Amino acid sequence: MKYSILILLAILFYFPTESKAQDLKVNGDRLHSTLMTLSTYGKNDKGGSDRIAYSSHDIEARSYIKELMAKAGMEVSVDFAGNIIGKRQGRNPKMSPIAFGSHIDEVPNGGDYDGPVGTMSAIEVVQVLAENRLYTDHPLEVIIFTNEEGGVVGSRAIVGALSQEALQVVSNAGVTQAEGIKLLGGNPERIPEIKRNPGDIAAFLELHIEQGGNLYNEKLDIGVVEGIVAIEWWEISFKGKANHAGTTPMNMRKDPMLPAAELILEINRIVTSYEGRQVGTVGKIQAFPGAGNVIPGEVMLNLELRDLSSEKIWTIYKEIESKAKELAEKSGTQLDIKHIEVASKPALADPMIREVITNQAEKLGLSTKSLPSGAGHDAQEMARIAPMGMIFIPSKDGISHAPEEFSSKEDIANGANVLLGTILQLDRLLK
Amino acid sequence: MKYSILILLAILFYFPTESKAQDLKVNGDRLHSTLMTLSTYGKNDKGGSDRIAYSSHDIEARSYIKELMAKAGMEVSVDFAGNIIGKRQGRNPKMSPIAFGSHIDEVPNGGDYDGPVGTMSAIEVVQVLAENRLYTDHPLEVIIFTNEEGGVVGSRAIVGALSQEALQVVSNAGVTQAEGIKLLGGNPERIPEIKRNPGDIAAFLELHIEQGGNLYNEKLDIGVVEGIVAIEWWEISFKGKANHAGTTPMNMRKDPMLPAAELILEINRIVTSYEGRQVGTVGKIQAFPGAGNVIPGEVMLNLELRDLSSEKIWTIYKEIESKAKELAEKSGTQLDIKHIEVASKPALADPMIREVITNQAEKLGLSTKSLPSGAGHDAQEMARIAPMGMIFIPSKDGISHAPEEFSSKEDIANGANVLLGTILQLDRLLK
Repeated sequence: MKYSILILLAILFYFPTESKAQDLKVNGDRLHSTLMTLSTYGKNDKGGSDRIAYSSHDIEARSYIKELMAKAGMEVSVDFAGNIIGKRQGRNPKMSPIAFGSHIDEVPNGGDYDGPVGTMSAIEVVQVLAENRLYTDHPLEVIIFTNEEGGVVGSRAIVGALSQEALQVVSNAGVTQAEGIKLLGGNPERIPEIKRNPGDIAAFLELHIEQGGNLYNEKLDIGVVEGIVAIEWWEISFKGKANHAGTTPMNMRKDPMLPAAELILEINRIVTSYEGRQVGTVGKIQAFPGAGNVIPGEVMLNLELRDLSSEKIWTIYKEIESKAKELAEKSGTQLDIKHIEVASKPALADPMIREVITNQAEKLGLSTKSLPSGAGHDAQEMARIAPMGMIFIPSKDGISHAPEEFSSKEDIANGANVLLGTILQLDRLLK
Repeated sequence: MKYSILILLAILFYFPTESKAQDLKVNGDRLHSTLMTLSTYGKNDKGGSDRIAYSSHDIEARSYIKELMAKAGMEVSVDFAGNIIGKRQGRNPKMSPIAFGSHIDEVPNGGDYDGPVGTMSAIEVVQVLAENRLYTDHPLEVIIFTNEEGGVVGSRAIVGALSQEALQVVSNAGVTQAEGIKLLGGNPERIPEIKRNPGDIAAFLELHIEQGGNLYNEKLDIGVVEGIVAIEWWEISFKGKANHAGTTPMNMRKDPMLPAAELILEINRIVTSYEGRQVGTVGKIQAFPGAGNVIPGEVMLNLELRDLSSEKIWTIYKEIESKAKELAEKSGTQLDIKHIEVASKPALADPMIREVITNQAEKLGLSTKSLPSGAGHDAQEMARIAPMGMIFIPSKDGISHAPEEFSSKEDIANGANVLLGTILQLDRLLK
């Protein structure tokens, strides 16, 4: 309440000029310094980050986040899913908030940038607004989501998509999601109460490292995310006849390794034969029984396809499936394909927000590239209830989820400035 | 000693005619009946045999074997390696014995024929000689080897090739080889004393199921083994760059799965491009880290090549290696090949013995085929110190090491008759 009075005074006595807002920049040094401080929570011997969700490192780092938010004048709370919410009032309290944020949890032995860049930039944006006593019309809301790496838990909770089963899944920290959420100060039983509906949030923005090599390799500053791709998984099995590798002549074999190998090459050929940025991966393969001296009875491989268009994924899959059938027939093996539910729907970025991001970057003299996000993000969930936009900055060598993950201080400041400009411009446009 | 007097009396009062020996046949019904009795030791719920070496089933079955040997008039002993030795004196005690035999231990959930056919036929041969009061010039020795399936332990001991390290290996029964040998009545510390040298055994013969489908598919009766193939193993690894399967565009990948898949197809092409009966198998493949959503950083596969000629194996390998290098270069991955020591040398059958086996089979009106043994056998070890011959009979559908393993009563009797005829003919020829 005490903040409300201050805000009212500020609004009454200080109306920043349009030009002042236009020139506003984040403090790149401060941003980098808070980012480096955050990286000390959970740093391991190998130089990686063990700040996995619900760990003591995560909990301690969250205190630091809350402290920074309060310092930036935000009203800090933790919702029932453990998400940290920092609120800043707007000049028009009737407007839905513009929300932005990311996460601070990491994969085991992860890096210092995937999540933290968007988190610290979100806080820096509010900090710089506070310092400049600049108020937006819309209320602002910084959201630091619970356990992104372990199943976008916090954002799913906010959009009402976190199932009871998901709450019982054991996380990397060894506790169930429900237990972990309690450790963060949440209350798993009351999660349904935090559900937001379409219209509750005016726009959601997330700044993130690319986690791929497009920007870095092409020496570009800013990625304007077209959307977050859909992911589909299949388990493909060829069954032949396990047999003695010594006593079974070559012409009497039904070796499923051969059609499996041929299919791997065909998958690569088919996926790359289409125009566009779809990707197809065989990341796992197993032979059964899997002994050097036994002709396998079965070879199983995982196929993953990703694209912004589910339709395109299925078109490509159908071609792969038909080739797999052909190879099974040719080799006298039996084909079994199982579609695996990964619950990953495509999420398109809002075209107007993409436009604003591009313009803001260009105003800052930054080069841009439109590209899909091949990785999942909290923004993907938030897109279910709000117009969504994502800003990418370069990842050195495209590396992520590893101690070598790196983005330069300049790239981070660039990203934060684009985030700031986009928020201010959206504030003007979304009435 | 009591046997010696009986034998002396037999020799003095009964000299069988050459024609009698020629007509001698095993008792196929009795042979089959002892084989079926042996199969009851360790029969499991799934119809398979759990008579693994050193198990209570193995130990109980060995008592049955000793009983049968004694009934056939043999002098039964257990050597320091746990091998059961059944001796029958010859007319010329100065001659080295003709030895023959096999094993009764099985792989876990194995069949009833791999080993037992040769074992029971060896005993039946002596039984029929005893019944017919027929004595060979050479002493005869039936050897039932210790733990064939778990590393040809007994035969290696006899030829002096069982290392101290091998004795410490834990067997399928959960005890070390040394402990297991003690359970069989052996004395691991005194194993060096049982070593036989070249000349100590006049010839070694083993009757065995083919374990492959050559004879069965071609409807042939007898396989005349050319030798036991050498086995060579390699671990082939392609190292690329593990990366996010969603964020790494297809053209920025260094995916080792692709050269690995191509090499599997090339291995099959190269191995089958040579004349002959060599075999090449990729029975095991692994991707690291091995997750559906990660482009593998490394793919490792096992290559096994088998042939009677080590030289040919290495010629084929060199061609595969050169192709692997080419694929690594093309895909920008790093190739590592490790040759794995499997201590399996080729063992050629003695040409004269092969000739005798062929003649004896033909005399019995049986069809024959010369072929290599793709599987390892005790005969392979025995070949280090004695001229060796192996006789194969058909395996239904080529299956072995499984409950479905099957050879018909007629085929078994045929094999035993060829064994008998070969022993008698070798007895005449080896002077």
